[in-house]
Amino acid sequence: MTAFDDLMAFQRDTEALGQVAMRLSWDQETVMPRGAAQQRADEIGAIESVLHSRRTDPRIGQWLAAIDEHGLGTVGRTQLRHVRRSYSRATRLPDMLAAEIARVTSRAQGIWAEARASDDVAHFLPTLREVIRLKREEAAALADGGDPYDALLDDYEPGATAEGIAAIFDRMRPRLVALRERIMGAGRPVPGLTGRFPAEGQMSIAREVATHFGYDWRHGRLDHSVHPFTSGSGADVRITTRIDEAHPLGCLYSTLHEVGHGTYEQGVDPAYLLTPLGNGVSMGVHESQSRIYENQFGRGRAFCLWLFGRMQEVFGTAGAADADAFYAAVNRVHSGYIRTESDEVHYNLHIMLRFDLERELIAGRLEAEDLEEAWNERFQADFGVPVDKPSNGVLQDVHWSAGLFGYFPTYALGNVYAGCLHVALRADLPDLDADLARGHAEPATAWLREHVHRHGGLYEPAEIIERACGVAPDEGPLLDYLDAKFGALYRL
Amino acid sequence: MTAFDDLMAFQRDTEALGQVAMRLSWDQETVMPRGAAQQRADEIGAIESVLHSRRTDPRIGQWLAAIDEHGLGTVGRTQLRHVRRSYSRATRLPDMLAAEIARVTSRAQGIWAEARASDDVAHFLPTLREVIRLKREEAAALADGGDPYDALLDDYEPGATAEGIAAIFDRMRPRLVALRERIMGAGRPVPGLTGRFPAEGQMSIAREVATHFGYDWRHGRLDHSVHPFTSGSGADVRITTRIDEAHPLGCLYSTLHEVGHGTYEQGVDPAYLLTPLGNGVSMGVHESQSRIYENQFGRGRAFCLWLFGRMQEVFGTAGAADADAFYAAVNRVHSGYIRTESDEVHYNLHIMLRFDLERELIAGRLEAEDLEEAWNERFQADFGVPVDKPSNGVLQDVHWSAGLFGYFPTYALGNVYAGCLHVALRADLPDLDADLARGHAEPATAWLREHVHRHGGLYEPAEIIERACGVAPDEGPLLDYLDAKFGALYRL
Repeated sequence: MTAFDDLMAFQRDTEALGQVAMRLSWDQETVMPRGAAQQRADEIGAIESVLHSRRTDPRIGQWLAAIDEHGLGTVGRTQLRHVRRSYSRATRLPDMLAAEIARVTSRAQGIWAEARASDDVAHFLPTLREVIRLKREEAAALADGGDPYDALLDDYEPGATAEGIAAIFDRMRPRLVALRERIMGAGRPVPGLTGRFPAEGQMSIAREVATHFGYDWRHGRLDHSVHPFTSGSGADVRITTRIDEAHPLGCLYSTLHEVGHGTYEQGVDPAYLLTPLGNGVSMGVHESQSRIYENQFGRGRAFCLWLFGRMQEVFGTAGAADADAFYAAVNRVHSGYIRTESDEVHYNLHIMLRFDLERELIAGRLEAEDLEEAWNERFQADFGVPVDKPSNGVLQDVHWSAGLFGYFPTYALGNVYAGCLHVALRADLPDLDADLARGHAEPATAWLREHVHRHGGLYEPAEIIERACGVAPDEGPLLDYLDAKFGALYRL
Repeated sequence: MTAFDDLMAFQRDTEALGQVAMRLSWDQETVMPRGAAQQRADEIGAIESVLHSRRTDPRIGQWLAAIDEHGLGTVGRTQLRHVRRSYSRATRLPDMLAAEIARVTSRAQGIWAEARASDDVAHFLPTLREVIRLKREEAAALADGGDPYDALLDDYEPGATAEGIAAIFDRMRPRLVALRERIMGAGRPVPGLTGRFPAEGQMSIAREVATHFGYDWRHGRLDHSVHPFTSGSGADVRITTRIDEAHPLGCLYSTLHEVGHGTYEQGVDPAYLLTPLGNGVSMGVHESQSRIYENQFGRGRAFCLWLFGRMQEVFGTAGAADADAFYAAVNRVHSGYIRTESDEVHYNLHIMLRFDLERELIAGRLEAEDLEEAWNERFQADFGVPVDKPSNGVLQDVHWSAGLFGYFPTYALGNVYAGCLHVALRADLPDLDADLARGHAEPATAWLREHVHRHGGLYEPAEIIERACGVAPDEGPLLDYLDAKFGALYRL
C-alpha cells in the first residue's frame, strides 16, 4: 500500500460514515417515531463526532505530505485536491470554536422558530448576535488572511468569490426588477387552481413523472416529509415530497426539484463512489439540476399541457378552465413575501437581498440590531410592497439561525447555471418538447448525465458548466429565458 | 471529570453508535432500495470498524485501572462490570482472527444458502469446516483456560454455563419426547385454518394487538420484513412482521413475539439509556419476553377466543368452524422438520438437538463431516421420523454459517424463563384471562416492566428471573404448563 492508497482507504470509510449520517437524517424526517428525537440527537452527535475526528486526523496530513503527485493521473490529483481542501478547512477551525458553533446554532434554531411564530425579532436578537459573532470568527479562521465571506462561501461553492457573484447579481437585479414591474403593471392577475386533489393521486403522478424524468428507483425511493429534500449519494439516493390536497402543484414540483438533485447523485460515475469525487460538486451545480427539472422542463408549456391532461384523468379536473389557464396558473407571478413560495421572477430577487445583507453582516458593516430595517428597506425597493410582519420578512428563513452564511447565493447561482445548461441542452436536443409533451424527459437526463452528473467532483463548479456549455457561465441566458417566457405569458 | 465520568462519556458515544448500526440494519431489511446492497455493506463495515476500535480502545483499560470502585453505588459498579466484561472479550480476540471470522462468515452465508437451495451438504462442508476451525480458535482465545463453549455462550447469556444448561435440558428432553409421543399417538389430527386473509386486515389486527399488549408507538413502529425482528433500544425500538395471506397466524404471532422483545427494550429505565445497562440483559431473558407474549398470552385459550371473534369481524371468517377448532388450530402439534415453524412441544426438542451437536463441534468431539449423520440420528430419536432432505435437516438454520455458536440454547432457556415468569405473574394477576379475553395484556406488561424490563442489565440473567419469581429458574413450570395445556387440548 502506498500513502495514496492508505489515504483513499481511510477516506472511503469517512465517506461511508458520511452516508450513514445522511441515512439517520433521512430516517428522522420520514419514519422515525416521534418520541425518539432526543435519542436521535445523541446518535447523530456521536457519528458527527467520529466524522470530525476523522476529518482532522493528523494521519491525513502525513499521507498528503508523503504522496508523490507525479505518479498520479488527473483523477488521483483531483481526489488529493478535494482531500487537501477539506483537511485544510477542518484543521483551520479550532475544535473549541467548532463545538461552540454546533452548540449555539443547535439552540438557536428553536429560539428562531419561537421568534418567527410570535413575530418577535427581539426574542431572536441576542442569539442571532451570538451566531454572527461566531461565524465572523469562523470566517476569519478559515480565510487565513483572505476574504472572510469567501471563506464561508467556499464550503458550498468551491472556487466562487463573493465579488464574482456580486458582479453577476448586480447585472441581474435591474433586469429582474424591471420584468417584475412590467408583469405587475400589466394588470393581468392569474387565478390559482381550485379544487381538492387527493393525496394518492398526487403521489401517483409524482411517481410517474419521477420515472419518466429518469429517476432510478433501484437506487432510490420517494417519501413524504414536511420539507422536501434529497439524501445520500451513489447507490442509495432518496427523495421526499410534501402533500397538500388543496395545492397539488407543491407535491409535483417538489418532486421534480428533488428528482433533479437525485438524478445528479445517482448519475455520478460509480468509479467515484465513496471517494471525494463521489458527490455533486457544489450547491450551485446541484441547484442548477433541481431548478432545470423543476422550471425549464417542468414549468415549460409542453410539460404543463401534458400535466393538465394527466390531472384531468387522475382527479377529474386539473383545477383550471383549460390548458392555457393551467399553464398560466403554474407560472403565476405574485407579489409574495416568502422565498420558498415565490415564482421564477421573484426568486432570485429574494436571494440577492439575502446575499447582500449577509455579506454586510460577516464583513462587520451591518449588525444584528439593524438587520430588520435593512431587510425591510430592500424588500420595498425590489418587491414594491412593504413587509407586513417579521415572519414574512427577516425571520422567514432557517439559514441564519443554523449558521448557514454563504449558502443563499448558491440558489441563484444554480438558476444562472440552469439557464446556461438549458440553452446548450436544447441545441443538442431540438425535439425535447415532444418528449415533455408526453410527460417524459429521459433524453435531457441522459444529456445532463453525460455533461454534468457523471463527473461528480472531477471539475470545479464553473468549469463543469463551461465544459458543458462551451462558454463561461453568465446570467444572460437565464434572463433571456425569463423575459421570453413571462413576456409571452403576460403579453408584455 | 473523574475517570468513571470519562469512561461513561466514551461509552455513551459507543452505545449511540451501536444504535446507529442497528438503524442501518433496520433500514436494510425494510425500506432500502434494492440496488443499494453493496454500498450498504460498505456503510455497515465502516461503522462496525469504528465500533471495533472503540471497544478495544486502550483508554478503556486505563480508565478501568484508574477508577476507585468504592466511591460508586451498585449501578456504577454494575456498569463497570459490563464494560470490563466487554473490554476483556474484545481485547482477548486477536484483530486478525476477528477480521478473518467476519470475512469467512460473511462469505459462508451465501454458500450455505446455495447449499440449502440445492440440498447439497458437500457444497457447504469445506466452508463449514473453516467456520468451525475459526470458532474453535475464537473460543480458545476467549476462554483463557476455561471451557471454550462457555466462552462463546457468554456472549449471548452472560453467566450461564453449558453444564448448567445441559442439566436442565437433560431433564426436559424425556418429558418432552414423552408428551410428543402421547400427542401423536392420540390420533386426533387438527386441521389448519382455511381461507384467504387480506394483508390490510392482518396488519390492522396486528397493530391493535400490539397497542393492547402495551407496545409504545411513540417510541416504535411496525413494518414488514422477510424475517421479523426487533431493532433498537430505549426511545426508538422498532418491530417488523411478515405477511402471508393464506396463513394469517404468521403475521399475528410474529407481531406478538416482537412486541415481547420490543416492550422489553422500551421498558428499560430511561436512566440507563445509552449506557451498558440500557438493553435487555441477555438473549435468554429477551426470548422469555417474546415467548411469554407469543405463547403463554397469545396462544392461550382466553386470547384465542377473542382473536377468533376479531378475525370473524375483520375477514368475515377466522378460517375455522368454531372457537374451539380455532384454538386447536393455533396450537396444532405437528411433526415438522423446521424449527422456525414448530409448535410449543417440538420447539425445545429442536433446540436441544442443536445445542448438543454444537457443543460437540466446539469441543472437537464431532467434525463437520459427521454432522449430518449425527443430526439425522438424533432427529429420528426425538421426533420419531427420519429427515427427508438436508434442507429439512442440518442445512435449515443460518446460525452456524454465520458463526453463531452458543446462540441456540438461549431460545430454549427463554422458554424455561417464560415458564417461571408466567407462574409468578399469574399469581399476582389472577384476572389476567379477563383482559386477554378482550384482546388486552397491559397488566402483564406492567408486571413484566416492574420485575424484568426496567432493570435492563442491572442483574445477571438467572438473577433477574429469580428476583421476579422468588425461586431460581428451572424447567418444571414450563413442562407442567405444556403437559396441562396439551393434555387438555388432545384429551390425553
